Amino acid sequence: MHDAAPAPLVPANRTVFFVSDGTGITAETFGHSVLTQFELRFKQVRLPFIDTLDKAYEATRKINEAFVADGKLPIVFSTLVKADLSKVIQHAKAMHMDLIQTFVEPLEKELGVKSTHTIGRSHNTANTDEYKNRIEAINFSLAHDDGQSHKNLADADVILVGVSRSGKTPTSLYLAMQFGVKAANYPLIPEDFERDKLPSGLLPFKQKIFGLTIAADRLSEIRNERRPGSKYAALTNCRYEVNEAEKIMRREGIRWMSSTTKSIEEIAATILQDIKPDIRTF
Amino acid sequence: MHDAAPAPLVPANRTVFFVSDGTGITAETFGHSVLTQFELRFKQVRLPFIDTLDKAYEATRKINEAFVADGKLPIVFSTLVKADLSKVIQHAKAMHMDLIQTFVEPLEKELGVKSTHTIGRSHNTANTDEYKNRIEAINFSLAHDDGQSHKNLADADVILVGVSRSGKTPTSLYLAMQFGVKAANYPLIPEDFERDKLPSGLLPFKQKIFGLTIAADRLSEIRNERRPGSKYAALTNCRYEVNEAEKIMRREGIRWMSSTTKSIEEIAATILQDIKPDIRTF
Repeated sequence: MHDAAPAPLVPANRTVFFVSDGTGITAETFGHSVLTQFELRFKQVRLPFIDTLDKAYEATRKINEAFVADGKLPIVFSTLVKADLSKVIQHAKAMHMDLIQTFVEPLEKELGVKSTHTIGRSHNTANTDEYKNRIEAINFSLAHDDGQSHKNLADADVILVGVSRSGKTPTSLYLAMQFGVKAANYPLIPEDFERDKLPSGLLPFKQKIFGLTIAADRLSEIRNERRPGSKYAALTNCRYEVNEAEKIMRREGIRWMSSTTKSIEEIAATILQDIKPDIRTF
Repeated sequence: MHDAAPAPLVPANRTVFFVSDGTGITAETFGHSVLTQFELRFKQVRLPFIDTLDKAYEATRKINEAFVADGKLPIVFSTLVKADLSKVIQHAKAMHMDLIQTFVEPLEKELGVKSTHTIGRSHNTANTDEYKNRIEAINFSLAHDDGQSHKNLADADVILVGVSRSGKTPTSLYLAMQFGVKAANYPLIPEDFERDKLPSGLLPFKQKIFGLTIAADRLSEIRNERRPGSKYAALTNCRYEVNEAEKIMRREGIRWMSSTTKSIEEIAATILQDIKPDIRTF
């Protein structure tokens, strides 16, 4: 589904605002997933840390300015938790999409409790155990990038293997950063193919290994950007490496997937499903 | 606002589902920001890649099972784009919070165009320029982690400086991964304090430097986890390093912030505001 090039977007001459009392990342993620349903291109303004009335009035002014400039209602995606700030923004001339107001009130009824209407209990907050786990996982994944260290591989949640440039490093870091998963990664290199075996340091951890493969022509393209015209990047060499790597993974019974047309997010989500971490409670 | 320990959560004995035809990350981010408004602990189940009718029926079955087991309506956060899949899930006994249905329809009216109702135009999709920029930024940030390389510092969007363990590495990687920002990072070390100068390789790029500082007692805590009882981790040494680093940053007129009680997301959002990248259109 990702093979086709995206259709060119039509300029909408309209401004979109992401307004938040925190980092704005939720507002932006939320807004993007809604807006990508339209083949239009928008001007985009991020207004994070709107956490006082003064800042809310200032944000309202900016939204109204965009209305005047565009001659069209701006679209405001907001995640303001405090009702008084939210009320100020609602006065701006815009189409308002408020994540909190829309969903929190019905949920209060269903759960039979009032919401706290405070920020600071976010799961991304510093000094919580979940946050510390994420930082620890990032450090682990960095220390175990590209087969740098065999130390503490027993602590890894998953060990990614695959040829150089198959997507192991960004996937490991994403798993660590987003999910607190300790993801090591280990390249399969020509020496492994000659021996036709997994690197011996990995054998005790076979059940934690997950393989990434990639179409040889795509691999050659990626490697050519880095080392143009090299043997490393040559299509014949890429074909050889990919074939050998797949042969080893198949024979060793390792779970694997192709990263060719997948984003990091998709690869990570697939791996997560597969390594089935315990259902988290929060 | 993040200093206080979070209040202990009351178990809600209720299951939350994140249902998506993609990775489920948007559904989960969206759900978390709504649920963190409640001081309740939920069982949490991620159901990504629900992209066929069969999978939608299977997901519905799981949701209904949770209803029977809990004796309470499960809460379903969904981002299913295709109406037929969404309709199947809507039949599950649950409280439904559908990001797409709730916001896309009103937006169709305002914009005067139909939504594409297709997935695959996500900005996280592989093979788009934005995606390639993100991968390139991750590679750049890794290559320029911890002052590893002076090469191509001219290409950096930002250069983070600060004492060891002030949060530079995770912040750099987050900026790269989430925003495609090429973030180098450079430690300020005792040699710099003795010379009382910024590392000379950084001087040509002073306008791109952003400093991170951290409270000495917190720094000592973090370093003690890594090297217990070392001089490196001792409070007096941490105090000295932090003071010296702040002195250099102040004198050089470098913008800086404290990472002590901030999450990576908050630090990154603050830096982004400060380096003011051009407003992106999408």
